[in-house]
Amino acid sequence: MNFNAGPATLPLPALERARDELLDFAGSGMSVMEHSHRGKEYEAVHDEALALLRRLLAVPATHEILFLQGGASMQFALVPMSFLPPGGSADFVVTGAWSEKAHAEASAWAALAGASVRVAASTKEGGYRRVARPDEAKLDEGAAYVHWTTNETIHGVQYPEPVRFGRAPQVCDMSSDFLWRKVDVAPFSLVYGGAQKNIGPSGVTVVIGARDFVDRGRKDLPNILQYRAHAEANSLLNTPPTFGIYLVRNVLAWLEGLGGLDAIERRNRAKAAVLYGAIGADAGFYRCPVEEGSRSAMNVVFRLPSEELEKRFVDEAKKQGMVGLKGHRSVGGIRVSLYNAVEPGWVDALAQFMKDFARRAG
Amino acid sequence: MNFNAGPATLPLPALERARDELLDFAGSGMSVMEHSHRGKEYEAVHDEALALLRRLLAVPATHEILFLQGGASMQFALVPMSFLPPGGSADFVVTGAWSEKAHAEASAWAALAGASVRVAASTKEGGYRRVARPDEAKLDEGAAYVHWTTNETIHGVQYPEPVRFGRAPQVCDMSSDFLWRKVDVAPFSLVYGGAQKNIGPSGVTVVIGARDFVDRGRKDLPNILQYRAHAEANSLLNTPPTFGIYLVRNVLAWLEGLGGLDAIERRNRAKAAVLYGAIGADAGFYRCPVEEGSRSAMNVVFRLPSEELEKRFVDEAKKQGMVGLKGHRSVGGIRVSLYNAVEPGWVDALAQFMKDFARRAG
Repeated sequence: MNFNAGPATLPLPALERARDELLDFAGSGMSVMEHSHRGKEYEAVHDEALALLRRLLAVPATHEILFLQGGASMQFALVPMSFLPPGGSADFVVTGAWSEKAHAEASAWAALAGASVRVAASTKEGGYRRVARPDEAKLDEGAAYVHWTTNETIHGVQYPEPVRFGRAPQVCDMSSDFLWRKVDVAPFSLVYGGAQKNIGPSGVTVVIGARDFVDRGRKDLPNILQYRAHAEANSLLNTPPTFGIYLVRNVLAWLEGLGGLDAIERRNRAKAAVLYGAIGADAGFYRCPVEEGSRSAMNVVFRLPSEELEKRFVDEAKKQGMVGLKGHRSVGGIRVSLYNAVEPGWVDALAQFMKDFARRAG
Repeated sequence: MNFNAGPATLPLPALERARDELLDFAGSGMSVMEHSHRGKEYEAVHDEALALLRRLLAVPATHEILFLQGGASMQFALVPMSFLPPGGSADFVVTGAWSEKAHAEASAWAALAGASVRVAASTKEGGYRRVARPDEAKLDEGAAYVHWTTNETIHGVQYPEPVRFGRAPQVCDMSSDFLWRKVDVAPFSLVYGGAQKNIGPSGVTVVIGARDFVDRGRKDLPNILQYRAHAEANSLLNTPPTFGIYLVRNVLAWLEGLGGLDAIERRNRAKAAVLYGAIGADAGFYRCPVEEGSRSAMNVVFRLPSEELEKRFVDEAKKQGMVGLKGHRSVGGIRVSLYNAVEPGWVDALAQFMKDFARRAG
């Protein structure tokens, strides 16, 4: 029972498929990772992964899907490099550790490029216990874009419904929010995320960008840093992480077979309800620091009465086969990630453990 | 028999090991790719891969080893960003398609950053048929660094012995040159390469840099673009491509078990001798465009009397189970990559096929 925040648990059928054909892909006598990225065997996988993502998320024809490298952290730099022109300004909505990092990296680039970045809203005061509402953001209507983070993996803060911050292009880090529920990406100019939560293994980064926005990106950067160049090359500008994209294909095929986003969203919401229910049922013992209405369905964070009890909780859970429960080292506490491949039965077992633990230790 | 130029064939024992423990790594009941990159299971793999690389290449303590993402192509941009300061200049030695690209990407950055790049030597005239000698390079002794490419994967041009271009820091793309022979990296300020030739799967990039050089890198860039930041974080600045690095570990463990670089170099030189011997034995039919003394032991390129015969050669070889023989689309002809995992028996079979083909078609 793996509740890791990412790299996270992957669907068993996707891994079994990888194991079964690791030495012989599609009867070729070679592993898929030994195939040329320009050969028809790999290209079929590449295109299937892109097509699955397009179908599952109902990505409109106005938007490109890219497979890149470097994680969301690399996009923290590449987004301002492409889309924050000299003299321009970008707005940031800061609701946790990741949007804070995105803002810091963009600030560094802005200083180099003669541009600026603004914090349009922040919930840092109070310790990132909620999302920021569009009506409290002090937006620059002339901003090159507004950047926000739909789910904060460390602080367990998530926008429950789609929002929009003003009229500037919307750019979002969706790393831990991708593909667990239906999202209409059409209103977004660019969304990105590391695959290692709901999409696949680490080492693959998914970017979905409106074609007209991507095309407007700065053209005097080195080619490899331009989203436009990757889009024109169908994410084959240089050698992609072929085995990672193959695993993404396996994960997406599993998700489609399960019934797609409608089915997985029901399953995920039920899991989150069980877990938040367990916290609420022993509210004197467990405490979720995140305000109602901002609580993440993907990363559930909570505290126990003491750090010593938190340590015991993690240790005893581990003995019962539950791993990945320790909160991020920057915030402490407990964190339970409930990504797509986390089985409902695991969450039931964890809820039962929580109940028992509270009885014993409370 | 896979002669791909990269992604390339991988050692069977490394793949078998991956298959056998794909669902259960080190008795954890989870795949290695499901482990946290901050957990002890993955960190042991990460550190072992780094240690193996250090032992195999005898990397001195003065040098850092990094696992990054984005391929050599990403380093084409990151190197000038870190090491080409405003007002500074860097020298490029251009001996094929890859050093040409490295120069183009650095030029784009130089124009943005108020720096400049020079071509100190080029063998483009004549179609990249040989390496450039240090004594013919017009070097700028004040250059921030000199960049060159030790082996040109497309043009089949390789420096047979270590050289040095002047006194400026030496920065090299060694993608298809890494780890097939002994190389003393101590004189180099920075060397880099995509893993997908001799080191592992695509999606992992190896960088070896002199600590003092890396430390002098520009500090006002976004953090994720700075080699220094990755070095300080032991290549765990953000989530690394964990499964890719795990496969690198498997490949390096195989190489060490085989006897390390001494043993593999003997094997590789013998393979190259067989193949160049086959070209020479039918010199009226096969023709290597690369001058003697610049012929690559890793990527052997040659031509047949006509493109039609080249097509037939590739097709008939494929029917005999030999794949990856088509030259790069930009240059045509035949290319045979002889990376570490290419078995000597495959090369013998190819040489025999070449002899037969020349008899039949010549």
